[in-house]
Formats: sequence, C-alpha cells, structure tokens
Amino acid sequence: MKIYNGYERLSRNYSLLTDEYEYTMANCYLLAGKEKEEAVFDVFFRKVPNNGGYAIMAGIDKLIPFIENLKFDEKALDYFRRKGYSNEFVNYLKNFKFSGDIYAVPDGTPVFPNEPIITVKAPLIEAQIIETAILSIVNGAMEHATGARRIIESVPSGVGVMEFGARRADGCEAAIDSSIYAIMAGCVGTSNVIVADMLNMKAMGTLAHSFIESFPSEYEAFLSYAKAYPDNCILLVDTFDTLKSGVINAIKVFDYMKRNNLSLNNIGIRIDSGDLAYLSKEARKILDKAGFPQAKICLSNGLTAEVIESLVNEGAKFNSLGVGDNISKPEGRMGCVYKEVALKEDNKWIPKIKLSNDTVKIVNPGYKKLYRAYDKNTGFALADIMAEKDEKLNTKDLTIISINDNLKSSILDNFKLVELQKPIFRSGNLVYTDPDILTKKKYCDLQMKTLYPEVKRNKMPHEYYVDGTESYVKMKTDLIKDAKKLIKRK
Amino acid sequence: MKIYNGYERLSRNYSLLTDEYEYTMANCYLLAGKEKEEAVFDVFFRKVPNNGGYAIMAGIDKLIPFIENLKFDEKALDYFRRKGYSNEFVNYLKNFKFSGDIYAVPDGTPVFPNEPIITVKAPLIEAQIIETAILSIVNGAMEHATGARRIIESVPSGVGVMEFGARRADGCEAAIDSSIYAIMAGCVGTSNVIVADMLNMKAMGTLAHSFIESFPSEYEAFLSYAKAYPDNCILLVDTFDTLKSGVINAIKVFDYMKRNNLSLNNIGIRIDSGDLAYLSKEARKILDKAGFPQAKICLSNGLTAEVIESLVNEGAKFNSLGVGDNISKPEGRMGCVYKEVALKEDNKWIPKIKLSNDTVKIVNPGYKKLYRAYDKNTGFALADIMAEKDEKLNTKDLTIISINDNLKSSILDNFKLVELQKPIFRSGNLVYTDPDILTKKKYCDLQMKTLYPEVKRNKMPHEYYVDGTESYVKMKTDLIKDAKKLIKRK
Repeated sequence: MKIYNGYERLSRNYSLLTDEYEYTMANCYLLAGKEKEEAVFDVFFRKVPNNGGYAIMAGIDKLIPFIENLKFDEKALDYFRRKGYSNEFVNYLKNFKFSGDIYAVPDGTPVFPNEPIITVKAPLIEAQIIETAILSIVNGAMEHATGARRIIESVPSGVGVMEFGARRADGCEAAIDSSIYAIMAGCVGTSNVIVADMLNMKAMGTLAHSFIESFPSEYEAFLSYAKAYPDNCILLVDTFDTLKSGVINAIKVFDYMKRNNLSLNNIGIRIDSGDLAYLSKEARKILDKAGFPQAKICLSNGLTAEVIESLVNEGAKFNSLGVGDNISKPEGRMGCVYKEVALKEDNKWIPKIKLSNDTVKIVNPGYKKLYRAYDKNTGFALADIMAEKDEKLNTKDLTIISINDNLKSSILDNFKLVELQKPIFRSGNLVYTDPDILTKKKYCDLQMKTLYPEVKRNKMPHEYYVDGTESYVKMKTDLIKDAKKLIKRK
Repeated sequence: MKIYNGYERLSRNYSLLTDEYEYTMANCYLLAGKEKEEAVFDVFFRKVPNNGGYAIMAGIDKLIPFIENLKFDEKALDYFRRKGYSNEFVNYLKNFKFSGDIYAVPDGTPVFPNEPIITVKAPLIEAQIIETAILSIVNGAMEHATGARRIIESVPSGVGVMEFGARRADGCEAAIDSSIYAIMAGCVGTSNVIVADMLNMKAMGTLAHSFIESFPSEYEAFLSYAKAYPDNCILLVDTFDTLKSGVINAIKVFDYMKRNNLSLNNIGIRIDSGDLAYLSKEARKILDKAGFPQAKICLSNGLTAEVIESLVNEGAKFNSLGVGDNISKPEGRMGCVYKEVALKEDNKWIPKIKLSNDTVKIVNPGYKKLYRAYDKNTGFALADIMAEKDEKLNTKDLTIISINDNLKSSILDNFKLVELQKPIFRSGNLVYTDPDILTKKKYCDLQMKTLYPEVKRNKMPHEYYVDGTESYVKMKTDLIKDAKKLIKRK
C-alpha cells in the first residue's frame, strides 16, 4: 500500500463500504451458478460539474489500497451471518480475493463525459462488490481536482493559488483529500498541516482575525507578528476597516521593520472581505505611495473562477489568492457511474446496453479501448476515441463519429494516438507504479497544455470530441436497434 | 472514545488536521507570553443551505473522539522541528492536552443562523488549534443531516425515505458519515453495509440494472431474484422500458409467485428513470388491474425536496423513496465559522467584535448563553434567545430584540425557557454521555415537531427568531459604536 510519509492513504478498511444490493445480487449469482461469469464495467460521468469543459482524473491513489485491502474478516462475515445470508455465500466471502483486471486513466489527466475513465474486467460478483467504494473514491477525488483546476485556469500567470479549504470540507478525511487533490491539480500550497506533512511540504498560513482581536490594538497585533515572522509577514487587514485601519497599521509596521533593518522581501497584506477589486486597487496605491511597492496583496473570501475573472477584468491588484470552499466543496457533482458494458458468453465478449427511459442514461456498450488523438504538429488534443477492444485503428486517415449523433463525423489526419487507460491490476495483482502527488501535479500541468483554450474556458466551453470509430459506433447503433425490437415484440 | 459496534467513529488521529496559521499564531502567543490567556470562541453559520428555514445539529459524535485523541506524538513534533518552529513551541505541543470547556447544542436539534451552536472556552492557543478540525467535522455532518431532513419533511406521512448516497459521497469516510447522519435525521434505512453494521441495522437493497443485463432476459433475471428473495421482492423495472417491459415482466413473476404459494406481502417495483409521476401512476394502474394492489412502488433518481413535492402534487403513486446525491452531497454549504467572541482580561470576560467590511460578517460578541423559548400551551418553539453569560432572564414577560435590527422587538409571555447548549467537556474532561444514533433519531423527530410548519416549509420559509435580551443587544450595539469610534479617531 502506498504510504505518504508514514501516513496510510486510506484511513481504514472499507471492504464493507458497499451498497447492500451488491450482496443480495452476489448471493443470487452464486445460487444461479453464475459466480464464474465474467463481466466488464466502465466508470464514466455524464456531465462536467459547473458546466465546465473538462474534468481532472483523480483517485487512483486511493483505489489501489482499497483493492489491495479488500477482504472480509470474521467481523465482516459475522454481519452476513447475522443478516441471514447463506453459509455458501459467507464461505464465498471468506475466501474472497479480487482476481480481476482494472484499467484506468492516470490521475491528473483531463477527461471528458461518457468515456470510460476506469474499466473493471472481473467475475461478475467481484465487479459488483467493489462498485460503491470505487465510485465514492473517484467522485470525491475528481470533484476536488476538477474544482481546483477550474480556479487555476482562471488565474493570470504568475499568480499562485493557495488551498485553504479544510474547514469547509465534508469531514476530516475529505479535508485531507481535498488538499491533496488541490495540490495535484496545480495549487502552489495548502494550509492543511497534515497534508503538508504527508507530501513533505511546508504548509501555508499567517494569522486570523482572532489574533488581532487578542491584542489591545491592530497595530500591536501586527507588530508582534512581524517580529516573530519578518520573513513571511502577510498581515490580515480587514478586521476593523481595510483601508482606514488595516492597511495604515500594516504600513506602520513595515516602517518599523525598515527602521530595524528587518527583511522587507516577504511583506504584504491579505484582504478577506469587502469588495476585493476596489479594496485591492486602493490598497495597492496606498502601499506604493508609502514606499512599499514590494508588498504583496493576497485576496481570499469565497473566490470562484467567475469571481476571479471579474477581479482580473476590473483591474484588481493581487499576487496570490487563497481559495477554500470552491476546492473543498466545489459547485456541482461529478456523478460518476459504474455500468456493466459487456458479459462473457461462450468465451466471447458480448456488449451489453441499458436503454432507460432517459436517452442520456444510455450507456456506451462493449469491452473497449480509449484513445486520445493529438495533432502531430501542434501537440493539441483533437478527440478521444472509443474503439472495440481488438480493433486495429487506421493511423493515417481515421474516421471518427459522434457517440450520440451518427450524422456528426470527421476524418483525422496527421495525428498521433495514445491509449488513455493504463493497466492497474491484472488478475488481482497490482501492476502499476502510482506516481507521487507532486509528479502527478507536473503531469497534470503538461496535460492541460494539450487542451485548446476553447475547451478550458469556464463559460460556455467548446465541447471536446468524445467519438467512436466507425466499427464501434455501428456496434452501438445495432445493439440499440436490437434491444428496441425486443421490447416492441413483447 | 465512542465505539460503534466495534468501529471507531474517527478513522484516524486528526491532531494535525489544522490550518498552519493556527500554529504560526500559537507560536506568536507563546513568544508574547499570552499562552495562559483565555478566550471564548463560538461556532455558528450565517445562512441555512438551499434557502431552508432550519439546519440540523450534527457532529458531536465525532467532535468528542477528536478532542479525546488530541495529542502531538513524535511524528507530529518532527513536522514542527523540520519546519523551523522554536524548541519552546515544540515543547509546548509535546505536553499539549486540551484543558478547556466545550458546550454544544446536542446532535439532532434544529438550529438557526447566527446562534452559537458550539462554544469553546479555553486558553487562546488551545482554542485556535482545534478550529479547523471542529469546523470540518461540523460542516460535513450538518450538511448531511440538514439535507436529509429537508427531504424527509417533503415526504407524505407513511412514506419512508431510504438513503442510497454512499457512491456519490466525498470519499469513503464521508460516505459513512452521510449514511449515519441520514439515519439520525430520519431516514428509515440505508443501503450502506458498513453503516448498517455500525448501527446494528439491516442494510437495504435489492438489485441493479447490471443484474438484469446479466441474465438472458429481464423475466429470467426477475424470476431468479424472486426465487432467492420472495420476502423482499422489489424489482427494478426500468432497464429496457418501464411500462412495456419492466412492469409486465414483474407481474409475470408475481403471477409465478402466486401459483407457487410464495409470500406476496413484500412484492413491488422500483422505477429509477423517466418521468416518475407519469410512470408511477401508470404502473400503479397496471399492477392493480393485474391483481397486485399490495405491490409497492419505490421511486429513485436524483430526488430533491422540490421534485418530491412536485410528485405529490401530480398524484404520483409511491410507497417509498430512495435518495442518494441530495443526502450525500446536498446543495449548498453549511459554512459554519469559528469566531473569537470574548477574551479574559483581569479575570473578567471582555466581549470582542470583528466589524469587517461586510455587515453580514459581523459576529455576535460575548461569552453568552443560548435559550429556546417554547409556548407553554402548544409546545411550539417561539424564538432562540442569546443572553449574557450570567444574566437572569425574566421568565414572565421577556422582551427580546432582533440581533440585526434593534427596531424589531417582541414580548414573550406564557413561555418555558430551555438552555440549548449542554456541557460536553469541562477542564478538558468529557462530561457528556453522547446518545447513540437511533436515540438521536427519535430526539430529532420530536424536536422537529416543536417547529411551526411555516419554519419547516422548503420554499420561502418563515424566518425563525434568533434574538437577544435587551441587555445582550445593548452590549452588542455599544461595542459596535465603540469600535467604529476607534476607527474614526485614527
């Protein structure tokens, strides 16, 4: 199991974190003699949260220890005995070890709706039992990473985003996750000490309003702080009144530091309320006029990508941003689902489809491969392409067809194909070396550079192509037709 | 530490789950000789998520083990040494034991904006160090409990709400929390097996679409399920087509069960897509006509309080509901904050205020008590009242004044006062017996009955009064005036 500087990535054994129906079904499969039948399940999402153009893959770092730890101890078996499950089923669980294959798109990769970001090939029962935990791992992780990257893409170059969200996270463990995935997705630092220790970084932080209230005056509070931390003296200026009190007292303290030959390299202010555009512009003028043009301005307070874009448009002055809620609890949900797409019959993979009364809930069927096509000259990502598992793709001129609209097709040339999913487990054995978070961070930055700016736009982004090969789309279309015929015949 | 049927409530030691600034400040307090100074901090929220009229208190069950486990082991101390903290500070942490008092409103109580739901009285340093973890515990817990109760209040009496949200939660630990708090807030059951085991319940669950796809036909899948679980035979009918295929096959199976003298007491269908109002009404007709009026209808698929109210208005037919996302990731955030409200100076509690450029960010100052007034005749809750800590309240005719608008006042008579906060820790020792979740569930139901229906309404609820006594409001008003004078004078 991956250890983070002595911390285990998963905080307990989650083998029983499963929806009951996985077991009622598993028991049924066993009774029906279907326990050896193999199936393929895909994890995918239908929509990017917050109307964004991309999501960031995350959670493989937790998926791995979950699968490795997966076993039913006496305490767990006792639950099933008490709840009236058959001896046969309890014995099955007693000897349970995940024996399947798991393929996944690596953490940090931008991914898109309706493509398989994780594929599980395993005996049907095993594939069902891991569903709930996989989804809660991936849904949580991707929300944080995607939320953080959305913020980062809205920030002018040179401005660092610090993650401050632990206090607003969904409990302590989610607070750890959100800080980790914020760093992975590009934040320059976190205020969260346990995560800083896990990743061997220095956590970020200066002072709170309560600190200032605990001294007889704002000036005395600032002075006390400056004496203790002359090398990291970012003073919070909005406890009483940002411009009339906070900035004035900060300047008095910077003057004191100057007179006492303390370093002025890392001085600055943080504004955490009020109109950040107006206050930051005024504060900048006052600081410059007072002879402290090097004083940095940090802004915080419920920042979203949209607010940051407004701040930039209005000429707000800032060197860094602190973001909390919108990384630890970003708007919108990932909504990843886990759907059966193929079943092995007579040693052949039969694609499966679920029609549903909602068209949007139709699943992309089949045991498949997922490719990303890059422009050979520019390196930009052109489209993601689903193909049948054993299909040989034309690497010169490749016709790709929209997954949801057969009339939309294009022909790619001068492109390079990369397979997006990597093998993580084979026959139950871990075959993947999961990179550390800081390596994933660099990888994520590079991958994001391959996306056209239009896809990364926060408002009304261009819809990135997730298409199929001709053969794949024909298979899907035929399957839908057959299923509909079957219903009609009834 | 509270054990849940052998499971620890917190999954690891979160002593380092702290924002770095708590330590930079703590270090500063130590340097300034302020380590013995005592302070009072209040936890409160400014707005009910999703424009609701009340929130449900939750998280005390995790707060208790967090405080009890709070200590800095060698591994933690090493972080501070490596990051350049002083020996004096590292020694302080080495001997750290929380020594303060914590008061809190019990889990399951409906609570309202701007009132202190938790109060911490402790040496300033200690009070700072516990901030981040307390907030992430309470924010997460209350979101789930409040989200669940919002759903439950929208459901007609006799209809049970089952919690299905683990897969959409923010990671595995949040999946556990959301199921636990859903039960506490009134759900009749959860699909989450680990939580069922923790609470000694039976988890709820039947079958998924994948089960149906794994058989040659929907009918064969249903039949196989019915044979295994005749006593809990709720069949999922929307894999291909709800009315033309699913309901028809379900009836065929119920007919089979009837012919074979299997119990027909717990038969039914679940509809998980499409227009639930239309489909449920049609399905009800078909089931009744086929001679199965006892067949239950369960609905699921992204249900919110608003959707449920529409279903009721449109005459949808259902016996139970399954809710996932809107309990594990309800819309809107709790946004609980932790603010300094008093500081001990010369053995006297001095109320503290933070003005801020945003009026809404002004804090209710002072070490105070929180009361709820109930109508003596009807038992309905009339108002929550903040008073100064040692204030004696008039129990006959009590004038209460709005916290945000001095012109709004009322006089209570024929009322009963109950103190809302209970002591949890005194001088660092646990003095509270935290009830188990099922006891809290009953308590929550009773407490909710004391609220006027107008306060519980999901759309545009009546704003419950959170007021102050005359003396309390005068103190707050004077404090704001003094602080403003101070700024002006500069």
